[in-house]
Amino acid sequence: MFFEGPEKKLELAISEKGPSLRWLGRPYWESVVRRARAEILSSVATASMDAYLLSESSLFVTDRWLTMITCGKTDLVSAVLKLTDSLGLERLRYLVYERKNAHFQEYQPSNFTSDIERLRQAMPGKAFRFGDGDDHHIFLFHLDRPYKPDPGDETLEVLMHGISPEASRIYMTGAVHDLMPGFEVDEHIFQPMGYSMNGVRGSKYFTVHVTPQPIGSYVSFETNCFDCGTDAIVARLMELFQPQSCDVVLFKPQGSSRQVLCAYPLKASFAGTLSCGYEILFSHHYKAQAAPKPAFEITP
Amino acid sequence: MFFEGPEKKLELAISEKGPSLRWLGRPYWESVVRRARAEILSSVATASMDAYLLSESSLFVTDRWLTMITCGKTDLVSAVLKLTDSLGLERLRYLVYERKNAHFQEYQPSNFTSDIERLRQAMPGKAFRFGDGDDHHIFLFHLDRPYKPDPGDETLEVLMHGISPEASRIYMTGAVHDLMPGFEVDEHIFQPMGYSMNGVRGSKYFTVHVTPQPIGSYVSFETNCFDCGTDAIVARLMELFQPQSCDVVLFKPQGSSRQVLCAYPLKASFAGTLSCGYEILFSHHYKAQAAPKPAFEITP
Repeated sequence: MFFEGPEKKLELAISEKGPSLRWLGRPYWESVVRRARAEILSSVATASMDAYLLSESSLFVTDRWLTMITCGKTDLVSAVLKLTDSLGLERLRYLVYERKNAHFQEYQPSNFTSDIERLRQAMPGKAFRFGDGDDHHIFLFHLDRPYKPDPGDETLEVLMHGISPEASRIYMTGAVHDLMPGFEVDEHIFQPMGYSMNGVRGSKYFTVHVTPQPIGSYVSFETNCFDCGTDAIVARLMELFQPQSCDVVLFKPQGSSRQVLCAYPLKASFAGTLSCGYEILFSHHYKAQAAPKPAFEITP
Repeated sequence: MFFEGPEKKLELAISEKGPSLRWLGRPYWESVVRRARAEILSSVATASMDAYLLSESSLFVTDRWLTMITCGKTDLVSAVLKLTDSLGLERLRYLVYERKNAHFQEYQPSNFTSDIERLRQAMPGKAFRFGDGDDHHIFLFHLDRPYKPDPGDETLEVLMHGISPEASRIYMTGAVHDLMPGFEVDEHIFQPMGYSMNGVRGSKYFTVHVTPQPIGSYVSFETNCFDCGTDAIVARLMELFQPQSCDVVLFKPQGSSRQVLCAYPLKASFAGTLSCGYEILFSHHYKAQAAPKPAFEITP
């Protein structure tokens, strides 16, 4: 029994002209989420942000910006195309579609090649791979339009693979909430297993998704809040989940000197600047081992 | 444009009773190879071994033993089932089916789960994964029957990913032949690119397959000859192909102290003993990097 934890992700911002994204209302967002083959389970709001917990991950919406993250066998590109169609391409300030390499690509309804074929029909874009093709990597497609991110517009993703069996149920203890104190939290425990949470504070969010299945175990963490000590959060995530390996992905405005440290040994790192103004740092790390591990037996 | 370099592999031995495998003749082997969706391109022989160069990799046959390696979109399980059907399961002393994780699993006609479903219908077996599921790994299925390999029955595989673009055409220079001097060589250069070679000396073989395509570049090396200085060969392979990462896989009789060194840093290693008497060491290594690498742009 397995579940595809590694996610697809959309982030976009729209111009100040025209209606707010939040004003579009819950039925609109339900229809967008449905297009991706997911549904809204619950929501929590601040004065400036609506945070939806989805059957497959999360959606955060402010007046002029959104991030949608979906896992499993979702079809996020269909949601992207619905959004760009209904918002109008001319209103977009930037759009980035990201996709982590899957554990079980053969069960996915699409791959990045077919994703970008569809996206390129709707908008001019560029596509990149950060990470070696035979190793952990993210794919990125972005609208090819100049944009200048605000100085504090930073996003951190920590994608953890091969979670310690003992640690995979740590979400039962409340330890995940404590990663970033002072956030209002919305969470869901899935049956037979799995955990999602959104935390919001003003226009800041953090989100954690846990896929504890022994085959393909995975945890993702993401935030746009960098005032809680990012290096300490990465260290705490490694301590909580003890992954076999992890990616650290940083989006930041071009020219920012921000770096994020991970204590695990580095296997590979990649850096690149997109024509939409963001600089991306991608690094893949692994847990050093003292002795050979046993083979994993696959029983019928 | 890409090609699936990472291979599937069958190795089996039959009892001394009954006809020799070589005696079955070329038309028989042509039909076996066809069943895997490949064809024989050429062959070379010694007094004790026939070595076939295939459109997708290699087949080595002695009187009582064979190894068949296939890449691309081949269906090696169908060839396995034809062989076990025509030879008779009771004649098998051992059988091991191995499969490296693919670069492009979504384009494969099967995955290991469906492979072992088919194999288990024909024979009792056990299945294992060596390597983390989210990382480089090999799958192994073996006939669950006691066997005691000969002391010198050792096989080394070196599976190299992300080949240096400059090195990917090194096969034009003859450098591959020189890896193991004194072997009779049969080779084939594929159009528009690609290279396969078999080298034979008595009952010893070595084989090299090069997939130089920039996306999914890959080189595999395999031998059952350990008297040429195995550590030196691994070092020479790293020097020739400068892969981003590589697996070193060693099959040896249970209790053997044989080890193979790789100078690249170690990411993970696995060890296990099969009930058919072989001990397997699998290790994954990577090329250390001094600075972040640039993102890879994916053009339409």
